[in-house]
Amino acid sequence: MNGADMLCDVLLANGIDVCFANPGTSEMHFVAALDRKPQMRCVLGLSEGVVTGAADGYARMADKPAATLLHLGPGLANGLANLHNARRARTPMLNIVGDHASYHLEHDAPLTSDIESLAWPMSYWVGRAAGAIDVRATTEEAYKQAQLKRGVATMILPADAAWGEVAPIDLSPVILPQRPRISTEALRHAAKALRSGKRTALILSGRALRSKPLETAGRISAATGAAIFSQTSDRSERGAGRVAARPIPYNIDLAVETLRDFEVAICIGSGQPVGFFAYPGKPGTMLPPGCDVIELADHESDLAEVLGMLAEESGLGADAPFMPNRLGQSDIAAPTGVLNAESITIAVARRLPENAIICEESITSAGKMAVLAPQLVPHDHIALTGGAIGIGIPLAAGAAIACPERKVVALQADGSGMYTLQGLWTQAREQLDVVTIVFANRAYAILQNEMRNVGVNDFGRNARRMLDLDNPELDWCLLARGMGVEAARVDTIEQFADIFAAALTRKGPFLIEARI
Amino acid sequence: MNGADMLCDVLLANGIDVCFANPGTSEMHFVAALDRKPQMRCVLGLSEGVVTGAADGYARMADKPAATLLHLGPGLANGLANLHNARRARTPMLNIVGDHASYHLEHDAPLTSDIESLAWPMSYWVGRAAGAIDVRATTEEAYKQAQLKRGVATMILPADAAWGEVAPIDLSPVILPQRPRISTEALRHAAKALRSGKRTALILSGRALRSKPLETAGRISAATGAAIFSQTSDRSERGAGRVAARPIPYNIDLAVETLRDFEVAICIGSGQPVGFFAYPGKPGTMLPPGCDVIELADHESDLAEVLGMLAEESGLGADAPFMPNRLGQSDIAAPTGVLNAESITIAVARRLPENAIICEESITSAGKMAVLAPQLVPHDHIALTGGAIGIGIPLAAGAAIACPERKVVALQADGSGMYTLQGLWTQAREQLDVVTIVFANRAYAILQNEMRNVGVNDFGRNARRMLDLDNPELDWCLLARGMGVEAARVDTIEQFADIFAAALTRKGPFLIEARI
Repeated sequence: MNGADMLCDVLLANGIDVCFANPGTSEMHFVAALDRKPQMRCVLGLSEGVVTGAADGYARMADKPAATLLHLGPGLANGLANLHNARRARTPMLNIVGDHASYHLEHDAPLTSDIESLAWPMSYWVGRAAGAIDVRATTEEAYKQAQLKRGVATMILPADAAWGEVAPIDLSPVILPQRPRISTEALRHAAKALRSGKRTALILSGRALRSKPLETAGRISAATGAAIFSQTSDRSERGAGRVAARPIPYNIDLAVETLRDFEVAICIGSGQPVGFFAYPGKPGTMLPPGCDVIELADHESDLAEVLGMLAEESGLGADAPFMPNRLGQSDIAAPTGVLNAESITIAVARRLPENAIICEESITSAGKMAVLAPQLVPHDHIALTGGAIGIGIPLAAGAAIACPERKVVALQADGSGMYTLQGLWTQAREQLDVVTIVFANRAYAILQNEMRNVGVNDFGRNARRMLDLDNPELDWCLLARGMGVEAARVDTIEQFADIFAAALTRKGPFLIEARI
Repeated sequence: MNGADMLCDVLLANGIDVCFANPGTSEMHFVAALDRKPQMRCVLGLSEGVVTGAADGYARMADKPAATLLHLGPGLANGLANLHNARRARTPMLNIVGDHASYHLEHDAPLTSDIESLAWPMSYWVGRAAGAIDVRATTEEAYKQAQLKRGVATMILPADAAWGEVAPIDLSPVILPQRPRISTEALRHAAKALRSGKRTALILSGRALRSKPLETAGRISAATGAAIFSQTSDRSERGAGRVAARPIPYNIDLAVETLRDFEVAICIGSGQPVGFFAYPGKPGTMLPPGCDVIELADHESDLAEVLGMLAEESGLGADAPFMPNRLGQSDIAAPTGVLNAESITIAVARRLPENAIICEESITSAGKMAVLAPQLVPHDHIALTGGAIGIGIPLAAGAAIACPERKVVALQADGSGMYTLQGLWTQAREQLDVVTIVFANRAYAILQNEMRNVGVNDFGRNARRMLDLDNPELDWCLLARGMGVEAARVDTIEQFADIFAAALTRKGPFLIEARI
């Protein structure tokens, strides 16, 4: 066997059996090795942004990492924007980048580049197999780091390490060390604050937003009056029977307003909330001056356990009461009037199937969906994390591969959708059960708002030509059909409701272009 | 005025009046500044691979750099693969990447990343404006470096440097220092080799492949018997009346075979040719052992001058004879039989309009076109340089913007075309005069060959699923129309010839899907 076979064996021994890929010449031995492992599911993306975005969506929903296969520095580069999102989502991923044979690097061949320099900004760990004999140790370390750090581990596989011979060996899964413990002092401080009667915010991120830790947060909230907030995260379990966390608004003014009265903030899963961007004369962080900020645990901790410890330290038993969300989906009135982000969101909410996965890359719909979510059937919500647009279509694909029995409903802005529209082909090829709703407003609408924020209200020709997506208008139905995905266009909210209901009755990918 | 206004003024003072862009929130002051400069042409790309690929194509044909506008680390990341190609083409480019306000970086906001680490692998120079007051000096330095190095200069523009106030000032163009001189010793050595009667190859790259330096090479060749070869380069001036350079084959075995008898190689414009990839048991370089390799000048030198000096040192006058290519386009017989890369290439060659720009991202067509090129009307040839696929559609767009009076004929593989198909929208919006011919073989055919090279002939399910593009098939006509580009599909060579002839009679973008 060769190094590439060993790599496949280590992946499979550790439960990694999906590889999102776009290979090139330097990865041919890896492709040949994958071809000898029919138990590995290989999923092709027609650009690497699809590959990494799908690996992110897969891991968020499967709760285990996928592998990727990327071709040299440029292949990695194409996947970096969605690796950035995965880094911010704290998604475990085993990112495998082929490189030239080590002895060929001195020639600076046309495809040579500094892969490490490209990889580090989006990775929690970067390593390079020194040769075939080193492939096992490097792969195991990459797996360990991806799991422990909850993040992207990038392993560089030189072609000669892939094709070099190694002896077969019996492999067992990597034994992961314990997750880091939190500070006892910080825990006592947080529990004391909760009991103090001060206005306290529990600000949750990442795995703290799964149903069990949310229930624990709900118990703390019911007993102490603490409010529960969420930051942008990999995945939130939402809906009836669960405990709601209120998303902190994206808009800095709204966020400051929302948080202005809190005296204590206990952050679990990440640090305190900060502004997505800086604006002249506006604050960079969101909590009020003088707020006691307790950053209790980051993503690397076991957040369910941390919340349990906090409840216990606060004197609450595992059976303390909490207020679950009540199902009220059927009370939502059918939307009428104009077709816009809000009416579409309401129409989607009314019909959302149980256990659906909402995949959201649309700022305009996100606020309304968060408000409606608690009264809907239980579902998952996954969204853009790092602000690098172009995640939605691949993320939905990866989630659908992880959860073939669940319907994925993707709420997709048109501008960001165009970044990785190639992912529709992967949805078609893999026959993934995704309904994509494109909010076709034919503009980078969020940027038009941001232009107004910097004081420009009358757009000239250059501004319009950089912020409008019209002239020509994109025809999403043709684009989808061109990649094998059925599609329909709607112009009224009634049409939308009908088409969406019909799309839910069938399996496989479908796209609705909603001209708002 | 603010720092962003100053940036625009420095660009315009140095003749940079085209900006390829995909902005985000942190660049809104730059967008507003561009909006105040109607003399700047702003061209939107719907993903950053389009932005950087088009800036490359523009600079190759305009012989001056364009600016880009990219949004933070992820926006840069999306553009890196085509920046890699630009780096290998030695294309001057002023790559402008917005960043958070400098005081916001400490918060590690979601879109924060290490922009310098991402930029360096694909840039010859990276700098960051320290504040508004520093924007002028940083922009001028970036311009100088882009021109001197003939390469990508990446300038990072923090939002507070863009929005900070600066005093207006009268600007004059940057004065560029002299290009580096070559070694007199190397020049004498090369001239002596040429006169020695040894079998000598003149291996040209980059600007040595323009018509004037090629003529000089032709004089040297006529007098000394030296053979003229070309390496993959930014741009080649080809056709009747010019001097032909024979492209060194991509395939390592063919390349070694082609060069095996040379005793001397004089490399002008870059180093000696090396293998695109390493293969077990095959050499990494192409020249035979014992060949006297003289690397006379790299891209930074004035290559027309270098060739003139070499001719003079070899005792040749400026009026020494050379053998120009003879026009034989009308002698090319109409192709018959099956529709394939070769018959399409012949059909294109027969009808190629004078002064056309051939933009090629298709390995399967490249060999035939290079053979036919000398007998065609004078034309330019631009192609994939760094091996990072997805350059073709944007490169054609940039070339068409640089040369609005010339027809661009783009020979495009389907797999690489899918990487940046978003560029078709830019072609439609800007009404660019590009005929794109998609070689729709529904496979990464080159990789299927590479798999056979590593000894795998029977592809299993996983290999097929990573190397085939069928199931579902892409419909390029729908994809093109979805972005506002007219398109037609052809299944026979006769249909192709008719549609291509018709496409040449009209202006504006058109796509032909050739199902080969």
